[in-house]
Amino acid sequence: MKRLLVANRGEIAVRIIRAAKDLGIETVAVVSDADVDAAHARLAHSVVHIGPAPATKSYLVADALLAAARESGADAVHPGYGFLSERASFAAAVADAGLTFVGPEAAVIEQMGDKVRARQVAMAAGVATVPGTTDGVEDVAAAVTAAGEIGYPVMLKAAAGGGGRGIRVVASEAELTKAFPQASGEAASAFGDGRMYLERFVRSARHVEVQVLGDGTDAVHVFERECSLQRRRQKVVEEAPSPGIDEATRAGMTAAAVRLCREVGYRSAGTVEFLVDDATGEYFFIEMNTRIQVEHPVSEWISGIDLVAAQLRIAAGEPLSLRQEDVVARGHAIEFRICAEDPDKDFMPGPGRVERIELPGGPWVRTDTWLGPDSRVSPYYDSLVAKVIVWGDDRPTAIARSRRALDELVVQGVPTTTGLLLELLDQPWFGEARFDTGTLEEWLAERTAVAAGGAR
Amino acid sequence: MKRLLVANRGEIAVRIIRAAKDLGIETVAVVSDADVDAAHARLAHSVVHIGPAPATKSYLVADALLAAARESGADAVHPGYGFLSERASFAAAVADAGLTFVGPEAAVIEQMGDKVRARQVAMAAGVATVPGTTDGVEDVAAAVTAAGEIGYPVMLKAAAGGGGRGIRVVASEAELTKAFPQASGEAASAFGDGRMYLERFVRSARHVEVQVLGDGTDAVHVFERECSLQRRRQKVVEEAPSPGIDEATRAGMTAAAVRLCREVGYRSAGTVEFLVDDATGEYFFIEMNTRIQVEHPVSEWISGIDLVAAQLRIAAGEPLSLRQEDVVARGHAIEFRICAEDPDKDFMPGPGRVERIELPGGPWVRTDTWLGPDSRVSPYYDSLVAKVIVWGDDRPTAIARSRRALDELVVQGVPTTTGLLLELLDQPWFGEARFDTGTLEEWLAERTAVAAGGAR
Repeated sequence: MKRLLVANRGEIAVRIIRAAKDLGIETVAVVSDADVDAAHARLAHSVVHIGPAPATKSYLVADALLAAARESGADAVHPGYGFLSERASFAAAVADAGLTFVGPEAAVIEQMGDKVRARQVAMAAGVATVPGTTDGVEDVAAAVTAAGEIGYPVMLKAAAGGGGRGIRVVASEAELTKAFPQASGEAASAFGDGRMYLERFVRSARHVEVQVLGDGTDAVHVFERECSLQRRRQKVVEEAPSPGIDEATRAGMTAAAVRLCREVGYRSAGTVEFLVDDATGEYFFIEMNTRIQVEHPVSEWISGIDLVAAQLRIAAGEPLSLRQEDVVARGHAIEFRICAEDPDKDFMPGPGRVERIELPGGPWVRTDTWLGPDSRVSPYYDSLVAKVIVWGDDRPTAIARSRRALDELVVQGVPTTTGLLLELLDQPWFGEARFDTGTLEEWLAERTAVAAGGAR
Repeated sequence: MKRLLVANRGEIAVRIIRAAKDLGIETVAVVSDADVDAAHARLAHSVVHIGPAPATKSYLVADALLAAARESGADAVHPGYGFLSERASFAAAVADAGLTFVGPEAAVIEQMGDKVRARQVAMAAGVATVPGTTDGVEDVAAAVTAAGEIGYPVMLKAAAGGGGRGIRVVASEAELTKAFPQASGEAASAFGDGRMYLERFVRSARHVEVQVLGDGTDAVHVFERECSLQRRRQKVVEEAPSPGIDEATRAGMTAAAVRLCREVGYRSAGTVEFLVDDATGEYFFIEMNTRIQVEHPVSEWISGIDLVAAQLRIAAGEPLSLRQEDVVARGHAIEFRICAEDPDKDFMPGPGRVERIELPGGPWVRTDTWLGPDSRVSPYYDSLVAKVIVWGDDRPTAIARSRRALDELVVQGVPTTTGLLLELLDQPWFGEARFDTGTLEEWLAERTAVAAGGAR
């Protein structure tokens, strides 16, 4: 691998460029009209303009990316996360063009991207799944029958979907009957596949995911991440290791993730997501993400393993040089997603020009960002502007240091979620790690009610 | 410890404030006229103005610092490095004022600050010293006799001095006779003590130092640092671990440093410096620094131990909770000192206003700096404006990542040594770790000659 096209933007494009530079690989950035002066363009060795600002006219146009790769003489393509990263057809097109796709084979992306097939793979690997349908359900009648067997409340997901979007929880047959046609219609238009997938809704659950690395033959895990703190199914704060599971659960879950990787001959970095039932301690496979995750830095920090560099090496054909016993966790890491949103205005995105920026520094504080002194936050893309990742030798130290680091972060000109994250750090339930996937939204609702002067 | 006065400025004041915040200790910054808007003032909980810009009228005035501590209600004082950090009288005055001095007892500072007494301590602890005088030499005749026994060339140092300043190498009796009165006179006026100390000058030597932590009873080492790359006896690039010593040397040297600490009942973080003879592999104790060092971050990074927090904890009376087996090294770290100097104009300091600054970021890159968007580099203080510290799982990875990190650093408005450090990274002797304490200056001289078009 000599020259890598980074088929993404924002902080993950910057992250990939850094990893490539560390490995001595040249980098090609792609930019839309809105990103001509962006950090990823400035840091890459060369830049190709691929189209207008809306992602549907640039970052999501496979042909434009392939043309950019040809034009720039790139021999490999890293898709980052989001955009085309889990589109099997893109991985196939990259391979067909004689280029290296930095990720698993198209067939594996397709297999794991289909929730129903992914569940089947998990079962074959002896990995527990949430009680639910084994095949995609195509109509209301079948859904009602299935839900009756699973027991309400049930979750309704697009069989071909991903990323938490479009998921509905229904508490009764009446709700299901109403929700199904709507959800199925949305899925059909978004993914070209209206099949739905039903599973048991676990009331108090943690979202814990295992980082894996595979080279097609061998696979290792790089421990797990705690990702329960979510708003609208988007993660807000992530940690490694999970403070909510015990050693036995950790051992079982990480081993299950490795079995799953071996089952599909997984080749790249990937994430196996689990739901942990707080009441019973049981854990169930939810899905596998066949790409690098936003929250990968917390795993990097406790393990010392450069996951993006590992992706590049594996894609270049190197065998996994790590044995499981080489993967040793040290301390505790927490990631905070800084979004250009106003938490006091229902998280309304606040695009605009950054007037002043000061990033946190000093020991054990990492900032992954595309923000610089004159950056413009565009309304066209997601609002993630920075990730502050903090390490400590234990969780309390990491929390104390996080407070300091977020306090040092200054962004003027656009609103950010920094203040809210500082408030969150002071909540006793956060310090004591007493939370599940519903906690953050409950807290936000309570906070809004208090701000509105509502009686409680 | 509730409130800490940080009796320093610049990056080390920022570093200490960060450590205190991580421990939940309030911080009081002190500022001279030149530092009213400095980063350490902005980051501390409160600020006390202590005098005019020249350090002799502010940061070096013990009474002003003690008054600031009283005024602000501080119960402890951290001296940082430089300034009053190794002045035993200051440590005593702090203790006399009923405050906690973050460092060893005045008597230990005094003992180790006197090169002759320090050598005696080393000998008592069974730690090899460079062949040299055991007592301070007061006149030329005694110096000539001693040098005859040691063998030329010899080094001439002030018995009461430190920090590499004022050291002379003399190659013959004639040179010694000429240099002695001069050196002794300088020492008398700088330290109030004209006694000199003579030792063998090792031609090809590495400077390797061991980081220690002691609580008065117990002591551990936190491995060693390679500090051979020096210009005018000031360190420029430091690494941990040292790439120039083998495991047996490492084991012997670290054990010797711990013995020395136990011998004096050392209580704080400290550094035991050794000279390693490249020809024979022998190592000799040079001196002990009874303070935090500029280059402490490389040790922090490979060990995961917060050395400044450890200083604060020990000063607050906590016993050392670390056992030696808990101190485990991982990977390789390199620190680059970024100075506001122009390497192409004989390192002339370039004070001025910072017009634009972009700090390197992303994985395994730490920046300790006091520079911000509108900082002014003052002519009154040393020119160190930032330290970029990079970690990798091995030395080649750390070097590659260093190149990337230094490349990302943008400072406009004042000259910096960044470009020179990038050049240094590309020298084969650096990559292969073939250097001693003379290498950097030789390279700089060669570089200057080439730039001047001089024939070689």
